Amino acid sequence: MARNRERFTAARRQMEVGMLSGAVGTFAHCDPRVETLACARLGLTPAPISTQIIQRDRHAHYLTTLALIAASIERIAVELRHLQRTEVLEVEESFGKQQKGSSAMPHKKNPVSAENLTGLSRLVRANAGAALENVPLWHERDISHSSVERVIFPDSTILVDYMLARLTRVLDHLVVHAGRMRANLELTHGLIHSQQVLLALTRAGVAREAAYRWVQRNAMRSWEEHTPLAELLTADPEVTGVLSAAALAACFDLAPHLAHVDTIFARVFGA
Amino acid sequence: MARNRERFTAARRQMEVGMLSGAVGTFAHCDPRVETLACARLGLTPAPISTQIIQRDRHAHYLTTLALIAASIERIAVELRHLQRTEVLEVEESFGKQQKGSSAMPHKKNPVSAENLTGLSRLVRANAGAALENVPLWHERDISHSSVERVIFPDSTILVDYMLARLTRVLDHLVVHAGRMRANLELTHGLIHSQQVLLALTRAGVAREAAYRWVQRNAMRSWEEHTPLAELLTADPEVTGVLSAAALAACFDLAPHLAHVDTIFARVFGA
Amino acid sequence: MARNRERFTAARRQMEVGMLSGAVGTFAHCDPRVETLACARLGLTPAPISTQIIQRDRHAHYLTTLALIAASIERIAVELRHLQRTEVLEVEESFGKQQKGSSAMPHKKNPVSAENLTGLSRLVRANAGAALENVPLWHERDISHSSVERVIFPDSTILVDYMLARLTRVLDHLVVHAGRMRANLELTHGLIHSQQVLLALTRAGVAREAAYRWVQRNAMRSWEEHTPLAELLTADPEVTGVLSAAALAACFDLAPHLAHVDTIFARVFGA
Amino acid sequence: MARNRERFTAARRQMEVGMLSGAVGTFAHCDPRVETLACARLGLTPAPISTQIIQRDRHAHYLTTLALIAASIERIAVELRHLQRTEVLEVEESFGKQQKGSSAMPHKKNPVSAENLTGLSRLVRANAGAALENVPLWHERDISHSSVERVIFPDSTILVDYMLARLTRVLDHLVVHAGRMRANLELTHGLIHSQQVLLALTRAGVAREAAYRWVQRNAMRSWEEHTPLAELLTADPEVTGVLSAAALAACFDLAPHLAHVDTIFARVFGA
Repeated sequence: MARNRERFTAARRQMEVGMLSGAVGTFAHCDPRVETLACARLGLTPAPISTQIIQRDRHAHYLTTLALIAASIERIAVELRHLQRTEVLEVEESFGKQQKGSSAMPHKKNPVSAENLTGLSRLVRANAGAALENVPLWHERDISHSSVERVIFPDSTILVDYMLARLTRVLDHLVVHAGRMRANLELTHGLIHSQQVLLALTRAGVAREAAYRWVQRNAMRSWEEHTPLAELLTADPEVTGVLSAAALAACFDLAPHLAHVDTIFARVFGA
Repeated sequence: MARNRERFTAARRQMEVGMLSGAVGTFAHCDPRVETLACARLGLTPAPISTQIIQRDRHAHYLTTLALIAASIERIAVELRHLQRTEVLEVEESFGKQQKGSSAMPHKKNPVSAENLTGLSRLVRANAGAALENVPLWHERDISHSSVERVIFPDSTILVDYMLARLTRVLDHLVVHAGRMRANLELTHGLIHSQQVLLALTRAGVAREAAYRWVQRNAMRSWEEHTPLAELLTADPEVTGVLSAAALAACFDLAPHLAHVDTIFARVFGA
Repeated sequence: MARNRERFTAARRQMEVGMLSGAVGTFAHCDPRVETLACARLGLTPAPISTQIIQRDRHAHYLTTLALIAASIERIAVELRHLQRTEVLEVEESFGKQQKGSSAMPHKKNPVSAENLTGLSRLVRANAGAALENVPLWHERDISHSSVERVIFPDSTILVDYMLARLTRVLDHLVVHAGRMRANLELTHGLIHSQQVLLALTRAGVAREAAYRWVQRNAMRSWEEHTPLAELLTADPEVTGVLSAAALAACFDLAPHLAHVDTIFARVFGA
Repeated sequence: MARNRERFTAARRQMEVGMLSGAVGTFAHCDPRVETLACARLGLTPAPISTQIIQRDRHAHYLTTLALIAASIERIAVELRHLQRTEVLEVEESFGKQQKGSSAMPHKKNPVSAENLTGLSRLVRANAGAALENVPLWHERDISHSSVERVIFPDSTILVDYMLARLTRVLDHLVVHAGRMRANLELTHGLIHSQQVLLALTRAGVAREAAYRWVQRNAMRSWEEHTPLAELLTADPEVTGVLSAAALAACFDLAPHLAHVDTIFARVFGA
């Protein structure tokens, strides 16, 4: 979203131009100084050159930027929809006290906002395509873009405003099930730590090919037999021949995954 | 347009289905016969299988068909815009007695309808893209298509209806300048007949490579010096060594281009 | 897919036309019968009317049809990806005996084919958009479509062929975890049967509003406290005042969901 | 193109990031300093946060920027195609001495490069749409974008490079028919000056409505009867009652259209 804000600022700045250069852009009946004065009153910069119109690459730049913002919102919406599905259930969209569920199924709490946002992004994306088609006008000034822009400009700007507001509301009131997050991590019987085992083996001198083979055969069995990976590795003589019980246990520690969290936050949000 | 009508009929037929199969499509609470009866009342066929929704490939098929119709209208609109440009001027959109021209330029009669139709096609095309994105719903039944269809369905159906009506009006009242058509043909100093000369030479036994060279050198000169091609060919001894004056003159006859017009009309519109 | 086959047949049929009507479509140098004969040799029908080219709405129809097929494949691929995620795990793409997992994580068995197919559909969809832009050519015969079609025709036809083959392979070897399907159904503590309870209450004379309220309050508690819905309803005097223990138990039967399976199969695949 | 260069610089800068943060972006097995060092060696900045992948809004930004550049090239190509048509003929693509014309028509010099560029822009535009669909990946890191990017990245970057080179070559060798430009201006019998007459009348005190009516009736007649507008106005007593012969003649001067050309050039290219 920081990137999108930067993109939007650039897209907006290059759009904030005006023109008053006459029907063919020659200032034949109106001095360029009038354009400068009029634009200043409107908070605009004069377009350095114009025809009957301002060139539509500016508008397409603006609308593709809105499509990028919409797609970024969609990415978050897709994430929320995944996290809310019954089998995952790590988050839930807030459900008002008075709010009724699905008409057929009283228990259902659907990710209605996230689904709505996912769809709306398709509209903004489609409109960006139409905006790009508006660029190659005949003689740099036919009027075929006009009927298009009467739809895509209000639709896209209103939609992105709505999407930003709705996403903010969803995130502000998001119900987060931290316990479920940990439980889901544990669903894999420790398989999420397989890479740490692989690295520990290679650091202990095992050739990577062999280490991979050892880990994979235990990982596969763990997966198929729903047995903790740590247990299987502890019973594998080739593995225990190289890694001590303590070294093996250390591989199943979540701590390394959390060690750099503060660094990452500082990189994104500043110190 | 005959093809589009056939496409539309197929697209409409596959859309005219209904469903009443319950929240997960199992008819758990409602016998399939109820669906059959309800659909019959609505003039619909029951979808053979459905989930909470009817699958969106049907709707995408419908909207891509509208985009094909819109693009075909756009093709005609682009043709009219070309034919109306000042330097060509073979047709003009009718201009009402009371209608004012451009606000700045009282003489201007712009192809406003054709430009409008060109733009609107971009909207219908963009909506078809959004409809295609609606097909891969999660578990064949998420609701993300809903926010999209609330826009693209009314917009695309209304737009195509409007476009068809507006195109019909334009064509009904189109001003055709037949004299200008002939004049434009003559702009080329007879170059449009160069292929007939080429064929006449090869039929008279000249190797195609040589014939091409002879015609091209005269064609180029005709083009650059604004001299009738027939005149230059008549003065070219290599050409006249093979083609008599009468044979050469016959190459500049428009008749062969018109000989099969009735055949073509019969093929398109029936005998 | 049955619908797609029908669409493809229609799209293919309308594409299988040829033309040999000369540079401006007038048959000036070549009798229409030559076109008929030549087309017959190629298994084509003559286009009833043509310019220098065959009109591009035919090609756009063909490519939007491929995009519909690709989107339908994408829908199945999205379904498989969902079903394969660790927390759901109802199916898995087959994993060859010799196949290595992720390079970093030896245990990982990703839905690589389904993800690949999901992406490829975006390409075919994008190409359909370009094909639609090819329709409004200048004077119904400029050559701007040529550079486009050299890419989108081989790309889209090869991609859809590849996608169909790859999807078939995935489905042929799909590992299905039926036990896990049942387990996932049970994850909801019986909430999936809430609609049956609601209907039973209303059939027993409870006003729908009240019935909804009774079911919802128990459904909510079941969801939040991870308690079987049946248990909670059995302890709710308002509910048990209307429904007997047997009537309540009947609501939690899966049988009604399976009662019409054979009917549905017969509707889709024939008796 | 100056705007496009600025857009490209911004798009490129935000793409030039790298990541080495591990399979889930936690730096679990590799200190962030390694990422910083590795990126520095590659001339990249570390992405402040990453998952298994770098977020695809960056790539979509890059590809929509290429689509903007392609659309701007298309705009110029469309202009050249218009200017080259037989009835306009203000410019021509250069035609090599050895180059053959159309195989059927030896005289034809088609705007082959401009038509090619028009088509290629559709491909780059379509690819930008696919890039936007790549943004909302599952859990911010599925791999469905991979199969898409293997096509759209090489295709779009190579195409835009080719388009820029080809457009440059066309413009470097463009044949400009200045005489024909003047002749085309005169095709309108002076109607292009109607706005100057309108303004002169209003400046002389005629109400705008009346002035418009006077000019339009003469403009219409000029257009329909192919008579110079100046001649008709000179014979219109209402007009001559207000404007002297000299004042009327001044309206038909091209000079005001050229008065600010240097100002415009300075605004675009610098003093």
